[in-house]
Amino acid sequence: MLTLYQRTDCPFCWKVRIALTELSLEYEAVDTRLGEKHAEVLRLSPTGNVPVLVDGDIAIWESSVILDYLDHRYALGRLIPFEPVAETRVRLLQAYSDKTVGISLRDLVFEKRSKPKHEWDNDVIRQSEEKWATCQAWLESEIGNREFFGDRFSAADCALAARFGIAEAYGAEVPAECVELRRWFLSVKARRSWRDAYPTSFIRTG
Amino acid sequence: MLTLYQRTDCPFCWKVRIALTELSLEYEAVDTRLGEKHAEVLRLSPTGNVPVLVDGDIAIWESSVILDYLDHRYALGRLIPFEPVAETRVRLLQAYSDKTVGISLRDLVFEKRSKPKHEWDNDVIRQSEEKWATCQAWLESEIGNREFFGDRFSAADCALAARFGIAEAYGAEVPAECVELRRWFLSVKARRSWRDAYPTSFIRTG
Repeated sequence: MLTLYQRTDCPFCWKVRIALTELSLEYEAVDTRLGEKHAEVLRLSPTGNVPVLVDGDIAIWESSVILDYLDHRYALGRLIPFEPVAETRVRLLQAYSDKTVGISLRDLVFEKRSKPKHEWDNDVIRQSEEKWATCQAWLESEIGNREFFGDRFSAADCALAARFGIAEAYGAEVPAECVELRRWFLSVKARRSWRDAYPTSFIRTG
Repeated sequence: MLTLYQRTDCPFCWKVRIALTELSLEYEAVDTRLGEKHAEVLRLSPTGNVPVLVDGDIAIWESSVILDYLDHRYALGRLIPFEPVAETRVRLLQAYSDKTVGISLRDLVFEKRSKPKHEWDNDVIRQSEEKWATCQAWLESEIGNREFFGDRFSAADCALAARFGIAEAYGAEVPAECVELRRWFLSVKARRSWRDAYPTSFIRTG
């Protein structure tokens, strides 16, 4: 049995839940709270951050490494292609989602999550939205007319699905000019993994 | 022919140079300057950061993905083990080096690199040294009596070698109580990859 220490609205945890569901793996979720270090997580991980996945004797405390592990242990090549060029593409897009997209959305999310609407700093929000628009323009050109970011629904798609989900939940929807991204996001939302992994703390969309 | 866009004293670039040398791969290094965005790097990468490795048609702009690519394309399993538990261990340690160790040393390096000695903020330096000490204590327990962080010299060892090299160059040497880390670092410094990949801008040590 797999155990996932997580926070339901953390994009890294959401990514892992999508991967687990895509691979039809059963798991027990242990919820932790924003701003609190969970005792078991502190024992299992040198960073004290979620997600942490426990599988028997092994504890994995880094979301992209969790996806590697799940793929290589349970589903060889389903989320991360074998062929080095296709693999590299998926890994780069996952890294872009984890870092560049994550940073672009961070201020927007922090501002809206932590304050009542009348206290929002709209300059901060606008700057964050501009960075997110730059990311989306690049991703629009990257996906082109492919069905997914990988040759199939990949680790990159797991990561980006969660980020686009966060953006939407905080009012930063995909703009009309990003035709390919809108198509991709609709197709992501039609999957069981979207329904099953959606944060319980969000109002359901799509 | 491989081309590496890099900065000689960037720890992510250093990690990649160690990996290239460990795998006996020839490459051309194109040096970029701190604080400047290189036009070709901006064209090749959506982040504009180094390192970027170019191999024919493919440009890889994330250091851990570069190591994956080199391993899977040129040296299957030399830097990243196949077996999922050993692989996970190497990936987690590389991620710990890239993020947690990197953050621990950042303020120390920025402070000493950017200012004359009489302007250093010694509180900032001490806090950074304390974080680095915490990292080393954890790494000491992780390596135990193993020869390397991987079952052999691995992607984790490439990453950590560069970080320990940076720390040493900025006066934060491995403390006497970290017996295993001192042994490991001496063994790292005896390798050709240490000599060949050492930053040209540093005074040579070891």
